[in-house]
Amino acid sequence: MAAALDMAYLAAKCGEVPVGAVIVKDGEIISAAHNLCEANKNPLCHAEMLAISDALDKLGEMRLCGCDMYVTLEPCVMCCGAISHARLRRLYFGAYDKIGGGVVSNLHCFGNNSPLYSTEYYCGIMEDECSALLTEFFENLRQSR
Amino acid sequence: MAAALDMAYLAAKCGEVPVGAVIVKDGEIISAAHNLCEANKNPLCHAEMLAISDALDKLGEMRLCGCDMYVTLEPCVMCCGAISHARLRRLYFGAYDKIGGGVVSNLHCFGNNSPLYSTEYYCGIMEDECSALLTEFFENLRQSR
Repeated sequence: MAAALDMAYLAAKCGEVPVGAVIVKDGEIISAAHNLCEANKNPLCHAEMLAISDALDKLGEMRLCGCDMYVTLEPCVMCCGAISHARLRRLYFGAYDKIGGGVVSNLHCFGNNSPLYSTEYYCGIMEDECSALLTEFFENLRQSR
Repeated sequence: MAAALDMAYLAAKCGEVPVGAVIVKDGEIISAAHNLCEANKNPLCHAEMLAISDALDKLGEMRLCGCDMYVTLEPCVMCCGAISHARLRRLYFGAYDKIGGGVVSNLHCFGNNSPLYSTEYYCGIMEDECSALLTEFFENLRQSR
């Protein structure tokens, strides 16, 4: 999660919402990304989506079996779906997203006994650090407007 | 929906799961896409995701306000999230997806009074045609194995 947080700090520096994600296989980071929605002018460019596509490219495979994702914020509904499609083994997330969270906060994408959406997940990993970064970012944004 | 079906037929010809999507603004189709998961070796390349990114590129905007999507199959959870993030106005879909559908079949992404996930949707448009194409595709696939 520390590596995902590094990506989130990088995002904040670029003016992107500070969310970072890394994908790990056999104890090694195979992809790392942060939000690029502003830079790409595309609201689908969440850290998780970019990290998944990058990992798929690197492995040259259609699925990420045996891979785990660490992401600083609870994934939204879109990213939960992508995590399922990519067959990630485990998801670890930091801060909770009460408005958009698709794991436990707003919708329960993985909790409906579906064979498609059944990724194992762990919540609140380094929650304070992940959450503080987001809070600070949005406070600065409000003050600058 | 007829234009989305044309894209789905094209997908089947390429060996992709036959799902097609188009995005319409002011009565004109601004993007059209079909599944490219096999060709791109990427399970995130659903017709809806590609149509959204293409439409964003064409309009040069961060959102697709005032745009509607027609897609031959009920969107999955990932695509429902993307449809919300792109702020599509209305979603029209054809066949129901009992296993992966994120609108009414498996999960109800738009039905939880969330301000984030609140796209207006209409189900079962040209359902028979959309469904028949998928059934035929998977029957052929089974027979060829």
